[in-house]
Amino acid sequence: MKYILAVNMKVYESAFGQKARELARRASVISSRYNGVEVILVAPLVNASSIAEIHDNTYIQHADSIGYGAYTGYMPVEALSHEGIKGVMVNHSEHKVTYRHLHRVIEKARALELKTLACGDTPEEVAGIAHLNPDIIAVEPPELIGTGIPVSKAKPEVITRALDSLRKVNPNIPLLAGAGISTPQDAIRSLELGSKGILVASAIMKAKEPWSRLEEFAEAMNNYK
Amino acid sequence: MKYILAVNMKVYESAFGQKARELARRASVISSRYNGVEVILVAPLVNASSIAEIHDNTYIQHADSIGYGAYTGYMPVEALSHEGIKGVMVNHSEHKVTYRHLHRVIEKARALELKTLACGDTPEEVAGIAHLNPDIIAVEPPELIGTGIPVSKAKPEVITRALDSLRKVNPNIPLLAGAGISTPQDAIRSLELGSKGILVASAIMKAKEPWSRLEEFAEAMNNYK
Amino acid sequence: MKYILAVNMKVYESAFGQKARELARRASVISSRYNGVEVILVAPLVNASSIAEIHDNTYIQHADSIGYGAYTGYMPVEALSHEGIKGVMVNHSEHKVTYRHLHRVIEKARALELKTLACGDTPEEVAGIAHLNPDIIAVEPPELIGTGIPVSKAKPEVITRALDSLRKVNPNIPLLAGAGISTPQDAIRSLELGSKGILVASAIMKAKEPWSRLEEFAEAMNNYK
Amino acid sequence: MKYILAVNMKVYESAFGQKARELARRASVISSRYNGVEVILVAPLVNASSIAEIHDNTYIQHADSIGYGAYTGYMPVEALSHEGIKGVMVNHSEHKVTYRHLHRVIEKARALELKTLACGDTPEEVAGIAHLNPDIIAVEPPELIGTGIPVSKAKPEVITRALDSLRKVNPNIPLLAGAGISTPQDAIRSLELGSKGILVASAIMKAKEPWSRLEEFAEAMNNYK
Repeated sequence: MKYILAVNMKVYESAFGQKARELARRASVISSRYNGVEVILVAPLVNASSIAEIHDNTYIQHADSIGYGAYTGYMPVEALSHEGIKGVMVNHSEHKVTYRHLHRVIEKARALELKTLACGDTPEEVAGIAHLNPDIIAVEPPELIGTGIPVSKAKPEVITRALDSLRKVNPNIPLLAGAGISTPQDAIRSLELGSKGILVASAIMKAKEPWSRLEEFAEAMNNYK
Repeated sequence: MKYILAVNMKVYESAFGQKARELARRASVISSRYNGVEVILVAPLVNASSIAEIHDNTYIQHADSIGYGAYTGYMPVEALSHEGIKGVMVNHSEHKVTYRHLHRVIEKARALELKTLACGDTPEEVAGIAHLNPDIIAVEPPELIGTGIPVSKAKPEVITRALDSLRKVNPNIPLLAGAGISTPQDAIRSLELGSKGILVASAIMKAKEPWSRLEEFAEAMNNYK
Repeated sequence: MKYILAVNMKVYESAFGQKARELARRASVISSRYNGVEVILVAPLVNASSIAEIHDNTYIQHADSIGYGAYTGYMPVEALSHEGIKGVMVNHSEHKVTYRHLHRVIEKARALELKTLACGDTPEEVAGIAHLNPDIIAVEPPELIGTGIPVSKAKPEVITRALDSLRKVNPNIPLLAGAGISTPQDAIRSLELGSKGILVASAIMKAKEPWSRLEEFAEAMNNYK
Repeated sequence: MKYILAVNMKVYESAFGQKARELARRASVISSRYNGVEVILVAPLVNASSIAEIHDNTYIQHADSIGYGAYTGYMPVEALSHEGIKGVMVNHSEHKVTYRHLHRVIEKARALELKTLACGDTPEEVAGIAHLNPDIIAVEPPELIGTGIPVSKAKPEVITRALDSLRKVNPNIPLLAGAGISTPQDAIRSLELGSKGILVASAIMKAKEPWSRLEEFAEAMNNYK
């Protein structure tokens, strides 16, 4: 299995317009260059379809637990495959949903052969989510998000306890570590702790050249072990 | 001034994929063919940027009262112009927001030279919204939305009272009539009552060929007076 | 007409238990003592019925736009009169609702002969709310709430512009000024600007003896003019 | 251990005023009369403090994950003990919250020695919640709530699978069965399936004399085994 390098583009300025498209182009190149790493772009709602046209492995940052219909301004899971989007992130720390919502989105995505990346704050939430069998789970202590203090250094026990949780409930789900991951070294440290990859945002999106930073992460992860 | 024919694509199946793009292509053609009518497509969040590439006059169905930043899965107004989107619909009956939200989105959109189409349920809400000076206001009695019973026939007083409200608060804002508008005749009846256009959804989006239905509306409105 | 001294108890520690009951007892005494002032306690949800047993003129801090039924944990307007509560505050800066919500709560309250105190951030929102004809409107610039910087001093134009708005839409609705009101002098300044009273929270609720502070405000307002 | 008979009063008309107080009085009598049954009243927000004065074992229907402070119209867990309330129900099917909310409310309640009754839709959600160690968990398939079709008859596997989940994660937490429980026989059937009690609403609250119906349930559960 490849290591997963998931970039949450959030809605930083660099997540839109030409800069976002350049990132998508480079993400594709980087994906082919480093065989041991899978690069996922988690795109904003408004341009996910445009990003997905450029980088094949694009997820969207949120979906609502609805189907097609009269739901102005909401995001049905069904629409994603028609727009070339490969997967959906759900329950991110900045966009928490109910367990019911999570359950419905994951079931619907599975039926539509879309991938799911579900986020949890804590090992307990990771365990709770694992019962729903998403494709990937990310653990991110909310107090570290955006701080530059990497979870892999400040709270390694969150990663190891989340891995314990997964082992008991559903050991096949790959765990990503997130929150404060700032350098390729932080990413490697997460892999050493047993995670299968990282969920990273500001370290890449706020870099002057997000694609260069992305490549540094990809190269380091590709060379690991 | 042109009459406004605003199509709320909602998240009907036809609002995504090839069918949506075909509608966008035709909307452009129809816009050039009928000089007296301005066709606005109000696109879903996920493909608004793609629709806007095809049909210039595309709005999005909702925006959040946030700026750029760490707001995973939300929709900052700032992003719209970078994605080629011309305007934002806000406070639709199916996506109600607080007055504070409305206020912030309208102010931010104005600063960015984006258009705003704000919706209200009642003549009272229309009056309330008019104090914020959006570019367009639509009035839609929620109990008629999606019923096929046109507001212009079932509740013409909602339109005329909303016009009275606007006259007192801000007479320059064009009013659209919406809810249950099913035929070009319903649209014409709305214009006769004094509205400057319509906001229509299911009558077009659920038609077998949405673009043909769109052209029928455009032609009728173009020929009026 | 009496001046209105409305105390938003919020959910400060002093809003619960014996301290809250003591405040309610004193509010009743103060009400009888100062004939020119109407003291309203705006109570938390959980003890509004208990506070209302002690102080007759008790409102609740929020109500949902629902009726009786299977709405676990929500607050139907209908329940209030059965629990001795006289009125409902709605759309406070810390608990914003949609215009539709506001509309329904105000209409339902009127039908049930309950009073309504609706809050707005700005003169524009005050105007918008006035179209719904609540019994009282309070204007509170959110940026001053809890700061101790009184609206009457820092942004007197918010009060005077809100009064202008009311004059145009519905001149009979009394306006309360709120946000940062810390001293009886701030209250008097608000009356001088044309308001009919104040909405005050931390200045009273965070005082060592909230009832003594309440009496100081009541006495000053009673003596004004 | 006693069987648990938890009555979700919801916001039915009978949950307020004199009828609610009569139910509280009788609940106390019934509690003393049937030693094998613990009667919990889950009261509306607005009169929970008044109900708790009459029936000692009163929970509230919802709490927010906040502390004391400037949160107008919200429900801090801290306030409950000052108002004589013994516990909090959280995440009911009609008032779903995020896992983070659930986590915070349960932790805060534990610190304050308040009981928690957490609800889940499915065996998966029950498992997820069990990782947080609330005092009681109730499982209620949302599609059966209020239908009169008892979960114990229509979907007994929901109860048995939820028990399996608990056995793996945290076998000490008592499980209540809910949704559609209409008769004392439905309650007994739930106990036979292994639950430790029931969560019931409309069957009692919509009865002409809720207290008589309550006694029938209590008597039957008391006599079981």
